[in-house]
Amino acid sequence: MRKLLLLVFCLPFLVQAQTNQDSITIKKMADEIMTNGTAYDLLRQLTKNIGGRLAGSPQQQNAAVWGKRNMEAFNADNVYMQPCKTPNWQRGGKDFAAIVGVNGKGQNSNLEVLALGNSLGSNGLVEAELLAVANFDELEKRKAEVKGKIVYFHSMFDPTKIQTFRAYGESGIYRRSGASRAAKYGAVGVMIHSLSTAPDNAPHTGGLAYDSAYAKIPAVALGPLDAQQLWAQAKTAKLRVQMQTYGFFLADADENNVVAELKGSEFPAEIITVGGHLDSWDVNEGAHDDGAGIVQTMEILRTMKALNYKPKRTIRFVLFANEENGGAGGDKYAELAKLNNEKHIYALESDAGGFTPRAIGITCSPEQFTSFSKWNALLKPYGTEITAGGGGADIGPLKKVFSDIVLSGLVPDSQRYFDLHHAKTDVFEAVNKRELLLGAVNMAAIIYLIDQHGVQP
Amino acid sequence: MRKLLLLVFCLPFLVQAQTNQDSITIKKMADEIMTNGTAYDLLRQLTKNIGGRLAGSPQQQNAAVWGKRNMEAFNADNVYMQPCKTPNWQRGGKDFAAIVGVNGKGQNSNLEVLALGNSLGSNGLVEAELLAVANFDELEKRKAEVKGKIVYFHSMFDPTKIQTFRAYGESGIYRRSGASRAAKYGAVGVMIHSLSTAPDNAPHTGGLAYDSAYAKIPAVALGPLDAQQLWAQAKTAKLRVQMQTYGFFLADADENNVVAELKGSEFPAEIITVGGHLDSWDVNEGAHDDGAGIVQTMEILRTMKALNYKPKRTIRFVLFANEENGGAGGDKYAELAKLNNEKHIYALESDAGGFTPRAIGITCSPEQFTSFSKWNALLKPYGTEITAGGGGADIGPLKKVFSDIVLSGLVPDSQRYFDLHHAKTDVFEAVNKRELLLGAVNMAAIIYLIDQHGVQP
Repeated sequence: MRKLLLLVFCLPFLVQAQTNQDSITIKKMADEIMTNGTAYDLLRQLTKNIGGRLAGSPQQQNAAVWGKRNMEAFNADNVYMQPCKTPNWQRGGKDFAAIVGVNGKGQNSNLEVLALGNSLGSNGLVEAELLAVANFDELEKRKAEVKGKIVYFHSMFDPTKIQTFRAYGESGIYRRSGASRAAKYGAVGVMIHSLSTAPDNAPHTGGLAYDSAYAKIPAVALGPLDAQQLWAQAKTAKLRVQMQTYGFFLADADENNVVAELKGSEFPAEIITVGGHLDSWDVNEGAHDDGAGIVQTMEILRTMKALNYKPKRTIRFVLFANEENGGAGGDKYAELAKLNNEKHIYALESDAGGFTPRAIGITCSPEQFTSFSKWNALLKPYGTEITAGGGGADIGPLKKVFSDIVLSGLVPDSQRYFDLHHAKTDVFEAVNKRELLLGAVNMAAIIYLIDQHGVQP
Repeated sequence: MRKLLLLVFCLPFLVQAQTNQDSITIKKMADEIMTNGTAYDLLRQLTKNIGGRLAGSPQQQNAAVWGKRNMEAFNADNVYMQPCKTPNWQRGGKDFAAIVGVNGKGQNSNLEVLALGNSLGSNGLVEAELLAVANFDELEKRKAEVKGKIVYFHSMFDPTKIQTFRAYGESGIYRRSGASRAAKYGAVGVMIHSLSTAPDNAPHTGGLAYDSAYAKIPAVALGPLDAQQLWAQAKTAKLRVQMQTYGFFLADADENNVVAELKGSEFPAEIITVGGHLDSWDVNEGAHDDGAGIVQTMEILRTMKALNYKPKRTIRFVLFANEENGGAGGDKYAELAKLNNEKHIYALESDAGGFTPRAIGITCSPEQFTSFSKWNALLKPYGTEITAGGGGADIGPLKKVFSDIVLSGLVPDSQRYFDLHHAKTDVFEAVNKRELLLGAVNMAAIIYLIDQHGVQP
């Protein structure tokens, strides 16, 4: 009884002492990262020396080898490859589109375009009248007019969505499904407004998925300025347009997830995963998407080793092989986790850019959320808080295998992301060193807290 | 009694209704700004067509005329100039510094430097041995060694300060006072580490103030990379360095604050001020510092007129003439406010860059702070909250005249600011349109709330 009383009296002090210890350790990690962090230099290597890394490309294979060597140099307990098959889409040429007629008169103006990822080539030049529609509703109303035309979807981002991922959520369906929705009514090609509010004319590619029930027609995204102009012009004039694309698939490629581990000292069977994806689109350096997530992941490993941190649980640092046009990397990781009968309790992904971090978004039970939210005071000095909902495309498949797993994602400020997402402007120069490192600080903090305290409320 | 009871019962509903109205109006303003905002295009004009705007320059005079014309075009009730005298510092030439000897051997390497603002020219080439010190403490300890030397202060930013303005607060004193502190002991020149953690070599200028008791020796800031290298080299070797600068003053210049007004309908005598400063340093376009604050101020005026908003109180939109090397604009504004017996209740400044807004920092009584904090739910959808402490150099002088005035400042995310602050890299291309507009949204929101509800708790 006295012991119990002692415990009851001491508990608040013990909790306080632990919180102080957490605060001290997180500050040490933050100081190490902000002072000696190598993430920015690693990103320079990945983007400038290796470059764009579409799954199947030699650059992607080299990036995996580069990631493995660097994580070995950071003295992880174990670094290994997880081979997986990925799609091997080829752009095949320089995508082309132009307005060639206005109200029956010849009038040429080239359009800045990129074929959508996974789209198939046009097999020569396609020329047709343009049918410009605001959305799928208008397409359905005008379905009788579609046959033989090239359909333009004015899939403009809603600029009033302060959280730009909400605009992406609304407009993204036109990139993914616009081609098949139009092909259903006999369209011969599709153009969309790039998924961006950028005040420039760089087109944004990104994954399309054909519905096998319909013809696989060519599809391109227009640069935002060209899209605005085309949309305005199409309201009052009949436009005749051309497009030519070259996309095709090679046989699936052999790629690799790269996995580094720090073995847990108390609960080695409980696995915490942190990662991002190595692949990018072919048209840029994949600096924010997702070079940032890759080098932040590596930075946390480096920092834990530099501070001689011994985790209680096993921490996995994973560079996923393929997210952009397939998700084969995340699928393989989850498949092997199930096969090996592992116990995954938590996963964190950084795949929303290397911008100033605003939150750690967590998908978990209400009880867990209440519990995790107590860490807000520990995170606030570094600019974040726990918010509800979060994860990532690469760690998503884990949820199908481990229904209790807590998934989470770094939530950087989202204002700049869709200016460069999947466009040629996503280059190293668009990444700010302090913002990138500060993301790693917050990721390290939440990984540390989960490692220390687990995921049970 | 029944009336009173009715009031007591209805009060919560009335408060709720007002909050809903506030929420609706703020959303209207936000949608207008994010959809039709012209701030980004105005910033392009200010930075690209007019350019750098050091007080006294023709560019600064043109910027005032440009500001006046635009605010007239936005149909303010009244737009006028407030003439004021400003310093007229001239850089006078291309600043130069180099290492010319290492341990007595000739060895040349040029250094990237900028003379500090308000510093006087070296009157020819100055060559001397370098004394590199970490800080003023070390200078004091080694004061016997200073005579005849060029002193280097390793005024490096502390990279672990997550709020970068805190690092600026610590290191800034070396820029302002380093020259006179070294001259006191006979130094013939001063070099400092640029006030930045930028991973580049662009030097950062900024205001210096000589202590008239000592010789006015030349002073330069080194690019961050050169500064790091010089500091490392100076630890193990005797360095001989050269410097040449050309600064001088012309007679004070005639500049203007530009003031636009929307007259209050209920309390026209109560004045709310919002502003930024038109002037910049000579070496850049002054895009973030403080073109952003200027065009955000103009954007709020445009938006209120576009929405036909009739303020209760009088709102002043002020483009201050001179902040960087004197503060003459803010002084003049406060002086005239006093002279005209005005009643100023609130002022808001944007002078920390056009980055994603994180907070509205407010300097007020604890009771007012509690009251203002109730607006956090209204600001949160736009990314900010009320935080304690805030103001700006241009509105600061109002506090000396109106002791009860509430001062505040837009608090943008601070990670990128000191990468480009006072360096050649502060150009239009470094400003993101959405981030800039979102700052204006939050400024408009707080101005609206103060206009509706006043500053009494």
